[in-house]
Amino acid sequence: MNKRMIVYMLGLLLILEGLMLLAPVTVDIIYKEGVWSAYLITAVALIIIGLLLSVFKCKDRAIFSKEGLITVALGWIVLSIGGAVPFYLTDEIPDFIDAIFETVSGFTTTGASILTNVEALSHASLFWRSFTHWIGGMGVLVFVVAIVKMASGGGNIYLLRSESPGPEVSKLVPTAKGTAKILYIIYIVMTFIEIIALLICKLPLFDAVTLSFGTAGTGGFSISNTSIAGYPISAQVIIAVFMALFGINFSCYYLLLVGKIKDFFKNEELRAYLIIMLGATGIITFNILNTYTNIATAFKDAFFQVSSVMTTTGYTTVDFDKWPELSRAIMVIVMCVGASAGSTGGGLKVARVVILAKSGLREIRLAAKPNRVSSIRFNGKTASEGMVRNVCAFFVLYVLVFVVSFLLISFDKNDFVSNLTGVVATLNNIGPGLGVVGATGNFSSYSAFSKLVFSANMLLGRLELLPLFVLFSPKTWKR
Amino acid sequence: MNKRMIVYMLGLLLILEGLMLLAPVTVDIIYKEGVWSAYLITAVALIIIGLLLSVFKCKDRAIFSKEGLITVALGWIVLSIGGAVPFYLTDEIPDFIDAIFETVSGFTTTGASILTNVEALSHASLFWRSFTHWIGGMGVLVFVVAIVKMASGGGNIYLLRSESPGPEVSKLVPTAKGTAKILYIIYIVMTFIEIIALLICKLPLFDAVTLSFGTAGTGGFSISNTSIAGYPISAQVIIAVFMALFGINFSCYYLLLVGKIKDFFKNEELRAYLIIMLGATGIITFNILNTYTNIATAFKDAFFQVSSVMTTTGYTTVDFDKWPELSRAIMVIVMCVGASAGSTGGGLKVARVVILAKSGLREIRLAAKPNRVSSIRFNGKTASEGMVRNVCAFFVLYVLVFVVSFLLISFDKNDFVSNLTGVVATLNNIGPGLGVVGATGNFSSYSAFSKLVFSANMLLGRLELLPLFVLFSPKTWKR
Repeated sequence: MNKRMIVYMLGLLLILEGLMLLAPVTVDIIYKEGVWSAYLITAVALIIIGLLLSVFKCKDRAIFSKEGLITVALGWIVLSIGGAVPFYLTDEIPDFIDAIFETVSGFTTTGASILTNVEALSHASLFWRSFTHWIGGMGVLVFVVAIVKMASGGGNIYLLRSESPGPEVSKLVPTAKGTAKILYIIYIVMTFIEIIALLICKLPLFDAVTLSFGTAGTGGFSISNTSIAGYPISAQVIIAVFMALFGINFSCYYLLLVGKIKDFFKNEELRAYLIIMLGATGIITFNILNTYTNIATAFKDAFFQVSSVMTTTGYTTVDFDKWPELSRAIMVIVMCVGASAGSTGGGLKVARVVILAKSGLREIRLAAKPNRVSSIRFNGKTASEGMVRNVCAFFVLYVLVFVVSFLLISFDKNDFVSNLTGVVATLNNIGPGLGVVGATGNFSSYSAFSKLVFSANMLLGRLELLPLFVLFSPKTWKR
Repeated sequence: MNKRMIVYMLGLLLILEGLMLLAPVTVDIIYKEGVWSAYLITAVALIIIGLLLSVFKCKDRAIFSKEGLITVALGWIVLSIGGAVPFYLTDEIPDFIDAIFETVSGFTTTGASILTNVEALSHASLFWRSFTHWIGGMGVLVFVVAIVKMASGGGNIYLLRSESPGPEVSKLVPTAKGTAKILYIIYIVMTFIEIIALLICKLPLFDAVTLSFGTAGTGGFSISNTSIAGYPISAQVIIAVFMALFGINFSCYYLLLVGKIKDFFKNEELRAYLIIMLGATGIITFNILNTYTNIATAFKDAFFQVSSVMTTTGYTTVDFDKWPELSRAIMVIVMCVGASAGSTGGGLKVARVVILAKSGLREIRLAAKPNRVSSIRFNGKTASEGMVRNVCAFFVLYVLVFVVSFLLISFDKNDFVSNLTGVVATLNNIGPGLGVVGATGNFSSYSAFSKLVFSANMLLGRLELLPLFVLFSPKTWKR
């Protein structure tokens, strides 16, 4: 294993994080809340550590799957620890486990919080919280890939593959670097459009920027204790629409950019994504209608919450924990389905759900006619058996992690529904669940142990399970 | 499709059910509660219908997978409808949907009830309820296979395969008829031993017989409103042990009978089954210890409930709904794992869970080294990819059914935990869940629609999903 290269890349990551920490320093210079020193000290420290780790150039730059997965896993852990330091230094989150939870939640674009009063935070810290979403959203390593300019044998493409969610990684352009560039240009441009749209709705610049960061990364940290409920309806609608847009596979936008509009609309995952989202919105609208005076507001609220949890963002405008049982059930299911593969969202991913459903249906066909050969088609092409197997195995691991986490969380004193949906909300990188961890609640009542389990869930979910498993597998470190 | 043969076999089943209904007639002659006529009328009617359906001999006796699956699915539905009639005629269950629910619950060996006071039933009806468990337990069709003496091309082995739960059907003996004979001899002998053991504990004969029927079929209908809690501790221990025994793959007992003791202890599923059962018992014992005065009683209660829900029987001696959150969580998970393949129990089955876990672990190995060939070993042999695929697809269908059922049940007015565990309890053929449907509760508060959904869940679970899907697939009936 090429350990030197892993250390080198982690060093680069730390330098990058150090540079990004200069943004909250700038914010505090504007707002003068006296927390700039905590951010600056952390930034300088991270840059120095990063330089020390990356100062020696590697001769052998070739890395493969294993190194790629380990770098991804370690990268997110290291970033989260580094990013937690300023929260602790400013005493805004006095418990370091809590600070870790909050930063993991930020970088994994979950949006689950242990804070009972976010409005008490300084502007710099509010900015940093939202900024971690934006960085995490696209995957820090996409930037690294673009920076490292690795020339060696396919190493970078592996890095990218272990990062991008879902089974289908369309190679948009021949090189990994080119792909990364296109993806983050789309990402940055869309974020800018949202910021401008929110400014038009008369939101203050700070609010427009932080909320757009949370939308783009499908994160969900808000700067208000009532999430998005306090903002004008026009802003709510814009955020709802942009959440839905950021939950679409970015490859689809590339298809639009190069004029392949027909291919865009023929995309099977996109269609399934929209059908599930609008279907859930429709049923919930009618289910909650009797508590509303008009259908338009009911639809707006239903669409906002569905768009928010399906894309695994986690912003809220109403407390869906108080909705009727059917709507609550739909919300939990939509949470697990998640966004599209290749988007910034989490969850199982629509593409996987479609392939899983098709592999189940195939088994029914085979039961009736055991000697028939039957293949699964996805997006107009025959899906390879290897891919179907991979998706099924992923699902099995996902359920396994879910069950074990639920058991571990049950050691705590909270109730069944809170524990269950707490795991759903963290493993799928959503944020709020039901009960104690519902739209108006938070994770503060859990023990330090449970918070670490939830943090592990957020990382497992965001990194699509495998990198962390490989990192902690004893076999990886043998010999 | 050989429809004549399906009708012929359904006819035989109805005749068999008619004959079995003579047992409760006899019970009522002894107890003189005036319900014998309802049972006799039903018996005669079923025998007449059965004779009409099977009077014409089939020339073409060859049946294949599809016919086998359809016969199994229709068989259980027809038996349940026929068996529900006396409950309705005696006015002991005045609502026919309720009567259907109760009989489906009996034949599928679930043990979920809509009755709020079982002690109000006549002895004949109590006997019939428990007898349906016993019949259902081994699978009525095993008897049919033995009776029909089909000689044709492998048809009967398919019938048996679609019936027996789990991925591994060891061909104990060359012919299907021989296999069936051995299995039901083991079943009958074990039931007899339990009856005698319970008689030694000074239980009345009626109680010993009905409770043994419920244990053998892993059913769970009791004749007392407090399930097993009112019986002496010795009887509780015997029932707990026999529940565990009936949850073991019957092929293992055959190994013992023919002296292959080494193979018995090397059986991978058996070891996993015992580890899960004793592990869950151990954790729960310590988790509930503070409410007990001594560890022995805590262990006894923990073992009884774990043995009961893991084998999907559903008898209870304490209300595990009142246990701490960790124990409740373990119970729900053990409910889903279920008993061994090839036993009378339901659930996912331990063998499947082991194979699923291994296929998940393989994916981690493959992630680190994508070019390696990696196969899954089960029970000392390499598992075929077809079998692994089948198990994964089964799991996907299982989760799909679970999610859809949970959504449909959520239309009703009950709470999240009751709805969720109600689906767990019926789909896995257990009986009690948590909340409204907990150990001291029942399914009476659900609407008729929900009761039908639960009934469908019981059938889907007991028949391992596929037969019902094939029956209701439009493709099956094309042309």
